[in-house]
Amino acid sequence: MNNLFDDIPDTVLEELSDTLVETPSVRIERIVSFNHASSEDFWYEQEQNEWVVILQGRAKILFAGEKFPLEMGLGDFVNIPAHQRHRVEWTTPDGPTIWLAVFYSKRK
Amino acid sequence: MNNLFDDIPDTVLEELSDTLVETPSVRIERIVSFNHASSEDFWYEQEQNEWVVILQGRAKILFAGEKFPLEMGLGDFVNIPAHQRHRVEWTTPDGPTIWLAVFYSKRK
Repeated sequence: MNNLFDDIPDTVLEELSDTLVETPSVRIERIVSFNHASSEDFWYEQEQNEWVVILQGRAKILFAGEKFPLEMGLGDFVNIPAHQRHRVEWTTPDGPTIWLAVFYSKRK
Repeated sequence: MNNLFDDIPDTVLEELSDTLVETPSVRIERIVSFNHASSEDFWYEQEQNEWVVILQGRAKILFAGEKFPLEMGLGDFVNIPAHQRHRVEWTTPDGPTIWLAVFYSKRK
């Protein structure tokens, strides 16, 4: 794959992720969601920071302690510090939501 | 800025770059070019690897030793190893070309 919009299946039952770059301190992933939400009561809590942008579609991310989710569309990005608990509340049912995520360590 | 398509000036005389994340081992930049080419005989030769994708516009990157440039459009990405000499031959005069670049160290 050399284009972020290639190889998008018509339907995606589980979130689909492709690792584009991986070193001990950085990992770049293309993630495809489709009408996807984290399982009830599931929270991501990651060892690495995550910078993530939406390249197609729409999503709502809820951060622990917040009442309302962050609504994201094309081009919107957010930086999620390591260990900040968050979950995907919703991605649009109208088509694939394509994310580009950069996971990175802070100290190295 | 929290959207990659925000704050794009109508014209850009020099390439414009905004650093979105910076740690000792990773730097994420939004770069805007407009009808831009590297100065004649100028070659980038970087200490870090660079993974770069085009989010709007079109560009041609020439790698040292290659006869023809790599033509890139929306969603196309390329991974440029540290010290691989390259130059931007051309970006479209039809509007801004928006790049997302992740510079990263290999060993850390």
